[in-house]
Amino acid sequence: MALLQAQRQIGLAATRAAAVLASAALLFGSASAQTRAEKYAAAAESIRTAGLRSEHAYKLLERLTTEVGPRLTGSPQAAAAVALTRAMMDELGFETWLEPIMVQHWVRGTESAAIVRLAGQKAPALAITALGFSVPTPAGGITAPVVEVRSFEELRALGPAVRGRIVFFNVSMDPTPMDTFQGYGGAVLYRSEGASEAARQGAAAVLVRSVTLRTDDHPHAGMVAYDPKLPKIPAAAVSTLGADALSALLKKAGSVEIRLELACRELDPTPSANVVGQIRGTEKPDEVVLVGGHLDSWDLGTGAHDDGAGCVQAIEALRLIRETGLKPKRTIRAVMFMNEEFGASGGRDYAAADRRKAERHIAALESDRGGFLPIGFGIGGTREQFARLEAWGDLLKPSGILWIGPGGGGADTGPLAASGTVLMGFVPDSQKYFDVHHSSLDVLSSVHPRELELGAIVMAIFAYVVAQEGI
Amino acid sequence: MALLQAQRQIGLAATRAAAVLASAALLFGSASAQTRAEKYAAAAESIRTAGLRSEHAYKLLERLTTEVGPRLTGSPQAAAAVALTRAMMDELGFETWLEPIMVQHWVRGTESAAIVRLAGQKAPALAITALGFSVPTPAGGITAPVVEVRSFEELRALGPAVRGRIVFFNVSMDPTPMDTFQGYGGAVLYRSEGASEAARQGAAAVLVRSVTLRTDDHPHAGMVAYDPKLPKIPAAAVSTLGADALSALLKKAGSVEIRLELACRELDPTPSANVVGQIRGTEKPDEVVLVGGHLDSWDLGTGAHDDGAGCVQAIEALRLIRETGLKPKRTIRAVMFMNEEFGASGGRDYAAADRRKAERHIAALESDRGGFLPIGFGIGGTREQFARLEAWGDLLKPSGILWIGPGGGGADTGPLAASGTVLMGFVPDSQKYFDVHHSSLDVLSSVHPRELELGAIVMAIFAYVVAQEGI
Repeated sequence: MALLQAQRQIGLAATRAAAVLASAALLFGSASAQTRAEKYAAAAESIRTAGLRSEHAYKLLERLTTEVGPRLTGSPQAAAAVALTRAMMDELGFETWLEPIMVQHWVRGTESAAIVRLAGQKAPALAITALGFSVPTPAGGITAPVVEVRSFEELRALGPAVRGRIVFFNVSMDPTPMDTFQGYGGAVLYRSEGASEAARQGAAAVLVRSVTLRTDDHPHAGMVAYDPKLPKIPAAAVSTLGADALSALLKKAGSVEIRLELACRELDPTPSANVVGQIRGTEKPDEVVLVGGHLDSWDLGTGAHDDGAGCVQAIEALRLIRETGLKPKRTIRAVMFMNEEFGASGGRDYAAADRRKAERHIAALESDRGGFLPIGFGIGGTREQFARLEAWGDLLKPSGILWIGPGGGGADTGPLAASGTVLMGFVPDSQKYFDVHHSSLDVLSSVHPRELELGAIVMAIFAYVVAQEGI
Repeated sequence: MALLQAQRQIGLAATRAAAVLASAALLFGSASAQTRAEKYAAAAESIRTAGLRSEHAYKLLERLTTEVGPRLTGSPQAAAAVALTRAMMDELGFETWLEPIMVQHWVRGTESAAIVRLAGQKAPALAITALGFSVPTPAGGITAPVVEVRSFEELRALGPAVRGRIVFFNVSMDPTPMDTFQGYGGAVLYRSEGASEAARQGAAAVLVRSVTLRTDDHPHAGMVAYDPKLPKIPAAAVSTLGADALSALLKKAGSVEIRLELACRELDPTPSANVVGQIRGTEKPDEVVLVGGHLDSWDLGTGAHDDGAGCVQAIEALRLIRETGLKPKRTIRAVMFMNEEFGASGGRDYAAADRRKAERHIAALESDRGGFLPIGFGIGGTREQFARLEAWGDLLKPSGILWIGPGGGGADTGPLAASGTVLMGFVPDSQKYFDVHHSSLDVLSSVHPRELELGAIVMAIFAYVVAQEGI
């Protein structure tokens, strides 16, 4: 792309296209929806302009990922993140408080996997990482032959042949769905349930292929969900390159033994907190529009996308509303939930807290799909509530939101639904999320300042109009 | 994002949202459009599945950027790229040929800018690069005081005060439009026209702030458009960090002298070629649907996004059609245009070539906005032609295309419009394009395999249905 004239034509074309799209989309809305969108168009533009000019969300994320870094639930860094994000919101002049909770405290320790007894073969290095909640191996590790399977059916068919072995779930994430969460859903079962399925047949440990579409040497963590009725066996993820190498070696050598050593362990539960900041509503302060993400992260990277992005977008949404001089009628509240990754207890504790009795959450907007380019919103609630919120689509289109569909919140806001809160889920593009998810690649440099800010912008606009107009 | 249940819910929500969107969108289309979209839904899904599974476009781009690298018009590397892309298409079994053309041949040579006569001040290093077609400085460079301006009005107001000086256009790209091409359009005028505007007032040379939204030390090249009625003066881009440092120094020191040395020069025109590959139509072989990009690039990076992406997407679109067993009725042709960056002569020569007399291009689909996430298509032609093409939106939605709007092609396909060809422009997301555009950052690692492939997928689907159904 070189010539000025061509660039002007294309820029113009895109602008015209957006205009045509907007006018076409009006066909969907009622006359009153048009009026409402027009009523808030100037506010939305102010928010968008202020956001794209400042890229402030990225500055907040830079602080969170460099001053604190990884924030594993229960860790000292998670406690530091509680203090830092509250301080950020204090600096911005919001009303802030902490809501104390108790959280699990699992620690990683040293970990390794080495191929042994491989006469005459060069052993590939295996990049592994313990899955969250994994029990440790005995000191000195577990040394056992590896059995590769590509499904639970294949595992079950092996029957007692896996007894005492290390089961290697080598199931690739399906690259063909556009929405990578679909591919993730198909593969992540082996990470969460593989250990207990293997234990049921007497396996000694499991190695699980990392759930990512990339072929690289970064293992991706995540939680293992042990069946309480079965023995807990050590569970680790292996990088996709490591999985490919191990699989190739099994084909070539026939049998391979691995020594797996994990020193992870679970400590006593520890005090922590959900972090809250808000702009109090001028007319209905007890009615709350929540925006939020989760503050804890995995420990291999710095939790930049998962979910530092959601946290700073929530803070930035409030900052943009404040900066543009808007005075919401209802309270707009940013919540940084603790302990999403080890069971989402922060979200449950928030919904159950005594404080909730004196207030009503009309909507809760969660951002926990990374800080990528915004494309849509998923909305829960009744058919009528959905229709009323969907009508704001026209207002959000100039900021890049191209659809509003049925859907809803995530792990943290979900418990609020029981008391009638409408759940709203921010949906950015998913093409790259699982490249970095739960791995050492989830760092600041994988986040783009404009993409991150655009998420904060559409969250601010949506939260503001809901605070003004209700649902 | 941790819990499986939440992930399933969100994945499901997104799927439902897409379904709702698709059914809502059918309201726009006629009954026949529905039928047409349904008729090709299986073909579109095959193309998408084959593409996302293979990520083959990225493999082609890896070859182009590593086996050849940068491909400045007229350079030996551009000639190597002609041979390589033809060979790629020969390997894939397409009918291929070259269409010889003559192109300009500007070469960069050594270049530097240093701050001089700065008593007691530490001189900041200035990262600069000559603009394309810039004349050289005399050997030993031009040493002159710098005059900073932020608009042409400011320049004109200075009158003869800029005589013999180096004019420094320090105009930032506006970050506030969603479509970054709009911000680019506002700032790039100083790069293209600044030299002649400064020469009109007797300036010795110009330095132009790089046109990017990032603050970094990578200068961004691009062509200077000299007014033939005015003296040609040397013109270079300075990195945004360099521009900020120079501006700060001017404020602090009052006056600053720079020695600018550029050894670039224009050589004699040299033979080159547009590269063509095609799948011949089974029923109307003389009616052509063109997909293409430009093969030449700037020389600082490897032209991965601009426009290696467009070239490999065109090849990959044909490969996907071939791989999925489709037999287009009309010819689908991939064209790698030469010399877009130095005046788009390849596109003009292609449209004017004798071969065109024996065939009719019904549509020309250009990809020259980078290999980023697809979001839309801009379509030219008459109102009726636009409406017929817009009706394919439903077919493209499951592959991520969210709008089809008025617009059209770019610099290379533009000349075909005169003979009735409908121009179609592929529009990916623009948030990151100018971060890398014309700079050393435009390399393979800035391209994502899925995003690149999705562009090839939607181009393949659109080209195929136009080849089957006409316009």
